[in-house]
Amino acid sequence: MKVIELKKSVTESNDRDAEVLRRELKGRDIFLINLMSSAGSGKTTLLSRTISDLAGRVRIGVMEADIASDVDAKRIASLGADSIQVHTDGMCHMDAGMTRAGLDALENNGSRIVFLENIGNLICPAEFDTGAHKKVMILSLPEGDDKPLKYPLMFRESDALVITKIDAAPYFNFDLEAAAARARTLNPDIAVFPVSAKTGEGMKAWEDWLISEWEDWRDA
Amino acid sequence: MKVIELKKSVTESNDRDAEVLRRELKGRDIFLINLMSSAGSGKTTLLSRTISDLAGRVRIGVMEADIASDVDAKRIASLGADSIQVHTDGMCHMDAGMTRAGLDALENNGSRIVFLENIGNLICPAEFDTGAHKKVMILSLPEGDDKPLKYPLMFRESDALVITKIDAAPYFNFDLEAAAARARTLNPDIAVFPVSAKTGEGMKAWEDWLISEWEDWRDA
Repeated sequence: MKVIELKKSVTESNDRDAEVLRRELKGRDIFLINLMSSAGSGKTTLLSRTISDLAGRVRIGVMEADIASDVDAKRIASLGADSIQVHTDGMCHMDAGMTRAGLDALENNGSRIVFLENIGNLICPAEFDTGAHKKVMILSLPEGDDKPLKYPLMFRESDALVITKIDAAPYFNFDLEAAAARARTLNPDIAVFPVSAKTGEGMKAWEDWLISEWEDWRDA
Repeated sequence: MKVIELKKSVTESNDRDAEVLRRELKGRDIFLINLMSSAGSGKTTLLSRTISDLAGRVRIGVMEADIASDVDAKRIASLGADSIQVHTDGMCHMDAGMTRAGLDALENNGSRIVFLENIGNLICPAEFDTGAHKKVMILSLPEGDDKPLKYPLMFRESDALVITKIDAAPYFNFDLEAAAARARTLNPDIAVFPVSAKTGEGMKAWEDWLISEWEDWRDA
């Protein structure tokens, strides 16, 4: 398992770097998705199932960003997917320079969609443009339907909201309609996908959206 | 509901400020606990039940720190407990100066134990001494038993680990023994309390520990 240690980018112009990276990736035919969520929301499990379900249609690679450990990257690599672990020197976000360094270190055997699995929290990652083409956030059902009220920026910034672990609904007072409505109040265009990566419920709608966004971008 | 907006402390000497605050609070007979966890781990639910269970033995106040909203502070206030909401101007942690400002603004009607419900993430709060006498972290069962591997500093820094939502065990592959063992590898002295604030399971052991730590501190 390859692990690279990243330091804060020396440049201060993150927004410009992000824009440059985004354009470059178009030339390299890599559709980059910034996947953000709290710790333990099921990012890796969602990606594992998505990678398996879409095998044969598109190859998906993953850049795992963490402050320590490589347990997530090992899980992804065990599926045969292109994967790399990056460490952020304690920082709670990825910026464009760090994302570029991670992509350059990723041994890409044909992945056309690459997920950046960002650091697990709902605060800092929302503030930095990584150069990704789309931003997707995960809210797991056990976290509660009040999260849009508490972390509005993350919901405002995301193109899609995947609500995970819906198979656990009997154990939690989570109002799916209320959560979606609160997200849409902040961001009327956000696409909302309730899923269970365990049972497969809702996965097709999420995967269809992903493929459709990728094709639109590729053909633009 | 009182809400105050905090800015980053002007002083750079956070460790010294924290030590001064900690000593001052001894004179004011306030036992301060820094409660840390990821977003949606059940901090407010744990505190609500703890406040109710211990009513008559000790009055507990709560300082709720968030980047936005006051939903948690309202829940605590609805129990009749002393409560204040602080906002952190987007920052993902509380420092000692911010904690002091929050405590000074709290209308304290006799609370002897005060919880600082820190910003919801497992990264930044671990790095700042707030002046609290004890640090307690929450790991909710849906987050997964691998979290000590991914956020080692938080586990190293905490005096107690409360594992919440254990009533949801049938829905999650969470190995309680493995999680506790991983935490103890990082921090051999950490006290571990598996609880369900919903069913009440395990709450007495956690509350007994809290009272015991408070009495030891008071009598020291």
